[in-house]
Amino acid sequence: MHVMEQGSVQEHGRSRKLSKIWVINERVRVGLAEALSTYVMMVFGLGSVAQVVTGRGAFGEYLSVNLGFGLGVAMGVHIGGRVSGAHMNAAVSFSMCLFGRLGWRMLPVYILCQLIGSFLAAGTIYSLYYDAIYHYCGGNLTVSGPKATAGIFATYPAPYLSLHAGFLDQVIGTAMLLLCLMALSDQRNQPAPSGGEPITVGLLVLLIGVSLGSNSGYAINPSRDLGPRIFTAIAGWGPEVFRAGNGWWWVPVLAPMVGGVTGASIYKVFVELHHPSPCEHRREIEDEAAPLDMQKNLSPEVCV
Amino acid sequence: MHVMEQGSVQEHGRSRKLSKIWVINERVRVGLAEALSTYVMMVFGLGSVAQVVTGRGAFGEYLSVNLGFGLGVAMGVHIGGRVSGAHMNAAVSFSMCLFGRLGWRMLPVYILCQLIGSFLAAGTIYSLYYDAIYHYCGGNLTVSGPKATAGIFATYPAPYLSLHAGFLDQVIGTAMLLLCLMALSDQRNQPAPSGGEPITVGLLVLLIGVSLGSNSGYAINPSRDLGPRIFTAIAGWGPEVFRAGNGWWWVPVLAPMVGGVTGASIYKVFVELHHPSPCEHRREIEDEAAPLDMQKNLSPEVCV
Amino acid sequence: MHVMEQGSVQEHGRSRKLSKIWVINERVRVGLAEALSTYVMMVFGLGSVAQVVTGRGAFGEYLSVNLGFGLGVAMGVHIGGRVSGAHMNAAVSFSMCLFGRLGWRMLPVYILCQLIGSFLAAGTIYSLYYDAIYHYCGGNLTVSGPKATAGIFATYPAPYLSLHAGFLDQVIGTAMLLLCLMALSDQRNQPAPSGGEPITVGLLVLLIGVSLGSNSGYAINPSRDLGPRIFTAIAGWGPEVFRAGNGWWWVPVLAPMVGGVTGASIYKVFVELHHPSPCEHRREIEDEAAPLDMQKNLSPEVCV
Amino acid sequence: MHVMEQGSVQEHGRSRKLSKIWVINERVRVGLAEALSTYVMMVFGLGSVAQVVTGRGAFGEYLSVNLGFGLGVAMGVHIGGRVSGAHMNAAVSFSMCLFGRLGWRMLPVYILCQLIGSFLAAGTIYSLYYDAIYHYCGGNLTVSGPKATAGIFATYPAPYLSLHAGFLDQVIGTAMLLLCLMALSDQRNQPAPSGGEPITVGLLVLLIGVSLGSNSGYAINPSRDLGPRIFTAIAGWGPEVFRAGNGWWWVPVLAPMVGGVTGASIYKVFVELHHPSPCEHRREIEDEAAPLDMQKNLSPEVCV
Repeated sequence: MHVMEQGSVQEHGRSRKLSKIWVINERVRVGLAEALSTYVMMVFGLGSVAQVVTGRGAFGEYLSVNLGFGLGVAMGVHIGGRVSGAHMNAAVSFSMCLFGRLGWRMLPVYILCQLIGSFLAAGTIYSLYYDAIYHYCGGNLTVSGPKATAGIFATYPAPYLSLHAGFLDQVIGTAMLLLCLMALSDQRNQPAPSGGEPITVGLLVLLIGVSLGSNSGYAINPSRDLGPRIFTAIAGWGPEVFRAGNGWWWVPVLAPMVGGVTGASIYKVFVELHHPSPCEHRREIEDEAAPLDMQKNLSPEVCV
Repeated sequence: MHVMEQGSVQEHGRSRKLSKIWVINERVRVGLAEALSTYVMMVFGLGSVAQVVTGRGAFGEYLSVNLGFGLGVAMGVHIGGRVSGAHMNAAVSFSMCLFGRLGWRMLPVYILCQLIGSFLAAGTIYSLYYDAIYHYCGGNLTVSGPKATAGIFATYPAPYLSLHAGFLDQVIGTAMLLLCLMALSDQRNQPAPSGGEPITVGLLVLLIGVSLGSNSGYAINPSRDLGPRIFTAIAGWGPEVFRAGNGWWWVPVLAPMVGGVTGASIYKVFVELHHPSPCEHRREIEDEAAPLDMQKNLSPEVCV
Repeated sequence: MHVMEQGSVQEHGRSRKLSKIWVINERVRVGLAEALSTYVMMVFGLGSVAQVVTGRGAFGEYLSVNLGFGLGVAMGVHIGGRVSGAHMNAAVSFSMCLFGRLGWRMLPVYILCQLIGSFLAAGTIYSLYYDAIYHYCGGNLTVSGPKATAGIFATYPAPYLSLHAGFLDQVIGTAMLLLCLMALSDQRNQPAPSGGEPITVGLLVLLIGVSLGSNSGYAINPSRDLGPRIFTAIAGWGPEVFRAGNGWWWVPVLAPMVGGVTGASIYKVFVELHHPSPCEHRREIEDEAAPLDMQKNLSPEVCV
Repeated sequence: MHVMEQGSVQEHGRSRKLSKIWVINERVRVGLAEALSTYVMMVFGLGSVAQVVTGRGAFGEYLSVNLGFGLGVAMGVHIGGRVSGAHMNAAVSFSMCLFGRLGWRMLPVYILCQLIGSFLAAGTIYSLYYDAIYHYCGGNLTVSGPKATAGIFATYPAPYLSLHAGFLDQVIGTAMLLLCLMALSDQRNQPAPSGGEPITVGLLVLLIGVSLGSNSGYAINPSRDLGPRIFTAIAGWGPEVFRAGNGWWWVPVLAPMVGGVTGASIYKVFVELHHPSPCEHRREIEDEAAPLDMQKNLSPEVCV
């Protein structure tokens, strides 16, 4: 990079003009990938819920939904991975901006494309399971009650859950997500294996579903929840989708933003900030009866 | 390759003759591998259905079938992987031809061998579970009804599903398969980890079963469905296997062809076409506060 | 190797003597590893059956047993992997001898150590689940009937299964195992990823349980079945363990031997024999519109 | 290392002083990572139990708990991996000290931080599932009986289990854990794939849950059990948590210490001690028809 910087002074004017075109192109390129990866994740995720709900237990169980969203996330990361980073989650994009890993100017592009992707995925699953849904509920699209089907698309809290407990639920769920995502991408610690990032992130989401899902359906993602909710409002479930659960809809939009930043910060404060500079105190570690794993942290090539 | 081309001019005549023999040998070699990999996938896949159906819940559940086909595909890819590519699916072979990754002359070889493999697998599972099937249905081989066993071998639509909804179901299922397969093999994006291609493709098929399976049993593959259906027609279920579901049999044959090309095209239009040429705009990316993952896309060695 | 052979002529006498000691040591070394890896696999495998049977559905289901044996095999491979090869299965050892990958003189060592390992594992699980088994069956150790517990340790056929159908069941199950194991270790095809061999083999065994398990409990392994059966005969279930199922006990001992060789041979005939010699017909492949995956099969470095 | 030792004589005094500060800093650094990784593992693990218990079967099953702890351990290893080694288990730390892989002076730091992490995780799950727990048990926090909820946090033995059988259960469970952990980190055998250590360890814990869990809930870890038990004593379940199960609480504290050392020793005695020195008897192996896998054990580069 250094070398290139020096050689590029005289091409600055031409570069300026190209840059503008490039920025527009780049936004299109990144936006398309982000929309498609969110779409893929959501088709698989919502599809698994539709199948379990309309199948009445014959075509999967709660664990199938965990697998549907978990592996759906993994496939989404494969789709957009090296192009947009495949956030597929406004809380992830927001945290990345806050920690300087994504330019703020890109944030609206990401969130908009994620919402478009999840809206279209809701539409796809609605068409695909149209017959099944109508057969299941007798054509009566309801948000609550024994034959409720709105929960196929967006999340709703359990009857016993108070709104502030629900907010905490979404904060903690998203905090665990970002805390672990920070670790999985920390090259100075024990990151996801190279090439295995998508499946590792997928297993993390599966795990959150297995452990932190029963209170309110683990949205932990504004883009996952709002797009399909808007779709259901239009497609026949009506404004009740925004009123249900004591006006639940804003919780999975706002709480994940708070939770994401909290979780990422906790990882930074507890682990990342304390990483030693590469060559610091190398000799002392060798004197000390330190755990073997600590020594791996120091790369000998750097300190010769 | 360049060097070899220059040195080979004078050997052209002899090479011509060898080439013909080689082409025949090559077709045999590729065909045998494709047949065996399809056979292995189908023995495991159909076996899992046979076990769940005849076991009445004591030997697995719907998730077992998802695992049976998912891991069955993974093992199939290990069998034929570097010899035939282990398509095991006429819709995949057809899409590969259309996008120039497989010569059209090889297409009949692939499809024929896949059908032979899946036909023989149906025969194997029939022999293996002969006692179990007869014990389950009392010797009365039926295509529908409470003790139907034809569904062990080929797919049939849910009673509520209209034929055009079923066609859409198979188009979307196969589109999702090819869309993701394109991403998994795109070396300029986030492909399946090197050596982990078989299991990644297997998890994709597991995911499709978990998410898009309840309408009509996710054939998403003409070779998987037609071979065993022909077997059941011969083995005792009779011509009803072609009449059932309003003449369903042709849907999992034709719709996957449409879906496969659609899915692969969507990936190309949304992601692959927009990959930057390796050195294009490198400097601009470095100026921009672009997401970290985007930068990985450019290999510095290439652009020095 | 070539270079070493030339330099070693004069040390031949001394080498001879050392060799004898080494052979004994080597047998001990390999035998201990083989016994321990079989023990580990069997403790996990039998433990999962004990838990499912005595837990009456509250502590796992049929899929738990598939996971128990599948991941148990993976851990067993980690234990003995690079020391004995961790066959943990007399049918695998026998096939390896037949195909020249293991010296025949080692075969008795392998089989004996496998039997010792599985016998001790049965003892461990018996002690560990002693209270649970007695609580479950009221202290009445039976081989068949509603509270049968002999099936925790060895396999028994389903009531509907004839003896020759059971023989076929074990032949096919073991054939599928060896067929896939051959592919997973074929470096000229698509082998298990480097370092991921244990988990890949484990998933294969899980898959066999999911697909080919309900007829007779997928022993597919004389060492897995005979050791624990002998243990149960001694520990209180009596000679009935050898009489049950129409004298079933010899089927999982003999049929896997036949099946293993069959499966390995099928892979050889259909795939391995047709691998091109590294440089053969390289030019022709480049002329032909061959599938991309076929070209990977030829390593360019070798053919310069 | 050698080079550095020689050049560092004259800096000895200054190094001494820095060393003290460093030791304190290092303990903080390692302790924070160990606490956070234990916290993460326990939030996911306890969360999965809370969900299964309060969800009455609608939000997961026994297998979900196995997944919750298994993948929870994997994520914990990602959090603390290269900083503290992410033991998250006093029995692991104790064994590491005994076998010289961790300085004894670090042991209290590890155990204290693990207890803090698991105590805080219990608090987090209590807040998160407060509404669900109260809705499930009607506000009556009991340790035993049909609506017992103390088992969400700490382990309790099955009613049929005698105390000494429970002790054996915890010894064997932890022995299997350490036996396999030793193999997974033995670079001269078949270790976990590089980068895949976290998920491999996670699958091991999942496997122990699937196979050795029904007797007493597979604590196999003093830190996992004691922290949350203390929390429940304070939070409303009272001193009964220490009296229940015939005074069970000390078993999962003490038995894993015994079991861990036993398991690690077994691996050493059966496998590790017999690894050949790199160049020993190389020629003999080549003369002998030895299994192929044995030959991998000797690296030719070392022996030139």
